[in-house]
Amino acid sequence: MYKKLFIPGPTHVVDEILEAMAVPMIGHRDKLYSDLHGQVVTKLKKFLQTNGHIYLSTSSSTGMMEGSIRNCVNNKVLMTDCGAFSKRWAQIATLNGKEIDLIKVEMGQATTPEMVDEYLSKGGFEAVCITHNETSTGVMNPIEEIGALVKEKYPDVLVLVDAVSSMAGTEIKVDEWGLDVVLAGTQKAFALPPGLCVVTVSEKAFQRSLDVENRGFYFNFEELEKKAIKNQTPATPAISIINALNVQMDRIFKEGVEARFQRHLDMAEHVRSWTRKNFALYSDENYLSPTVTNVHNTREIDVVNLNAELAKRGAMLSNGYGDLKGKCFRIAHMGDLQVADVQWLTGQIDNILGL
Amino acid sequence: MYKKLFIPGPTHVVDEILEAMAVPMIGHRDKLYSDLHGQVVTKLKKFLQTNGHIYLSTSSSTGMMEGSIRNCVNNKVLMTDCGAFSKRWAQIATLNGKEIDLIKVEMGQATTPEMVDEYLSKGGFEAVCITHNETSTGVMNPIEEIGALVKEKYPDVLVLVDAVSSMAGTEIKVDEWGLDVVLAGTQKAFALPPGLCVVTVSEKAFQRSLDVENRGFYFNFEELEKKAIKNQTPATPAISIINALNVQMDRIFKEGVEARFQRHLDMAEHVRSWTRKNFALYSDENYLSPTVTNVHNTREIDVVNLNAELAKRGAMLSNGYGDLKGKCFRIAHMGDLQVADVQWLTGQIDNILGL
Repeated sequence: MYKKLFIPGPTHVVDEILEAMAVPMIGHRDKLYSDLHGQVVTKLKKFLQTNGHIYLSTSSSTGMMEGSIRNCVNNKVLMTDCGAFSKRWAQIATLNGKEIDLIKVEMGQATTPEMVDEYLSKGGFEAVCITHNETSTGVMNPIEEIGALVKEKYPDVLVLVDAVSSMAGTEIKVDEWGLDVVLAGTQKAFALPPGLCVVTVSEKAFQRSLDVENRGFYFNFEELEKKAIKNQTPATPAISIINALNVQMDRIFKEGVEARFQRHLDMAEHVRSWTRKNFALYSDENYLSPTVTNVHNTREIDVVNLNAELAKRGAMLSNGYGDLKGKCFRIAHMGDLQVADVQWLTGQIDNILGL
Repeated sequence: MYKKLFIPGPTHVVDEILEAMAVPMIGHRDKLYSDLHGQVVTKLKKFLQTNGHIYLSTSSSTGMMEGSIRNCVNNKVLMTDCGAFSKRWAQIATLNGKEIDLIKVEMGQATTPEMVDEYLSKGGFEAVCITHNETSTGVMNPIEEIGALVKEKYPDVLVLVDAVSSMAGTEIKVDEWGLDVVLAGTQKAFALPPGLCVVTVSEKAFQRSLDVENRGFYFNFEELEKKAIKNQTPATPAISIINALNVQMDRIFKEGVEARFQRHLDMAEHVRSWTRKNFALYSDENYLSPTVTNVHNTREIDVVNLNAELAKRGAMLSNGYGDLKGKCFRIAHMGDLQVADVQWLTGQIDNILGL
């Protein structure tokens, strides 16, 4: 029995997208591919409000998180630890031989411009890495304000953003907000199968990368750019997913970008209300994520059992991540899920728990 | 109109595999995924005759070519240049800050154990990288003999093999031949869509990697192993392609492994005979590839025009690669193509060219 996914990735994929995954193969040096690639990039530029570079990386987001560090940082980078995924990005920087300083944020709280300012004022940083939507805590960090701060006070510092679980679920004005690198996998709010990462790169970040040592090849912006100008990729790309992304971009524009983001907020509002009534919100009310809600398990229910019962009814949610396992559970409301879906889900949970 | 792909990747994908790409999504930390992952790995171990580690990398082969270097080489590695793809691997090693020595092989000729011996005897190498099947020249290099040589005379040197366009089209006895890392993308002889790379890693290579500096995260064997023991991956994997690979492994065993390799030889023999009759084989007759034939364009036909005519008839072949553009053209005979397909193709070419 299919379990509808209310987990923060992979998310539920609609039939039209599954069909787009099953198209016959084409050559990646053929005009058919270049046309496809060009269409996808044009649509993404409009959607993400950027005139910068856009690369399609055949990898999960984690690959390009590593890539962005290798491209943009010679020596030292400011990282955050506001949950499992920002912490992992810091680990990636270290494993790539970069010196880091780490902003330790209390779990469930946001990374603020003030924190970033305090650390950057020490000097010596080439970039700061911000996790837009921390999937493990359900916090959305204020990247617009952080971008504005860095642009004004630290114009030489690049702003790299992990928008893995926010892009396509909430507005990101890449150029206006001064974001140099913004990356996201396709299996979250884009609601496609996993295996592809979309990344925007500002001209400033691109030029800076040319002077960085030991950038490697696979995620190297320079290598990606050499082929991007021909609407191609250096290595064979995940053609099926790129085709599905092209179809999905049309679906997004058909729904309307504003309507899409409002739908995410509407789903979030329903889940938050239900959470406040029956449990408690784990995270700071001022920075709640529009794509995933972290439910503080104040009733100490058995989350594994709850998921087992939900499975019988055709749904799946996520346990708390890492240290929050059992203490929280997470309901994702992103991608192609509808308000009726999350209403149905909370109704099922009420029924199972006798709420 | 669909063009049947006689190019050396992506290759023609049959309907049953396309359907397997379109299955509903599952969670990558769910038991459903672990079961799938475990099944695929078990089948691959049997197919590749190895008891070593097998990792599924969500990337094209190029990503893991970089990864294998980062995992296995601290300082110096022996590379070859026997065509465009071996040359690129050497470039990747350099871009990752490794010192290389390069065996320059004449185009169309094989990399021999004698050449490898000559270079390795200089000392100081941690690994040697061999391109099994050089897709740009249609040469299959003798990795069995090279593996035997290294095992006997240079037991501390790791043997890394790019089997991108050979794996699943010809037998590779990973353990018996002493191959430490063998990697291949899924869009060549596996006949799946691109976006996934299969890599085998010997215990010796794995242990060696633990002492290598600056291995990064995404392709890091240690990180892959931590999750592989739970039949998972560190980052979200390309679930659709892994599902298609599982279906394809069953199809391979159903056809019979021997029968599959014989079919590749039969297709190759037909294309070689046709080539000898009408053009000439570009590459050394002793090392002809069973998966792709490089046709020396002795008639100086216009390859672009030929492909345009073939397109009208629903087929596509490849021009010569790099310096060989126009001087050669390539006919791939791998994956799920049948002898009747290549017979049909050469018949169409005869008809177009009036041969």
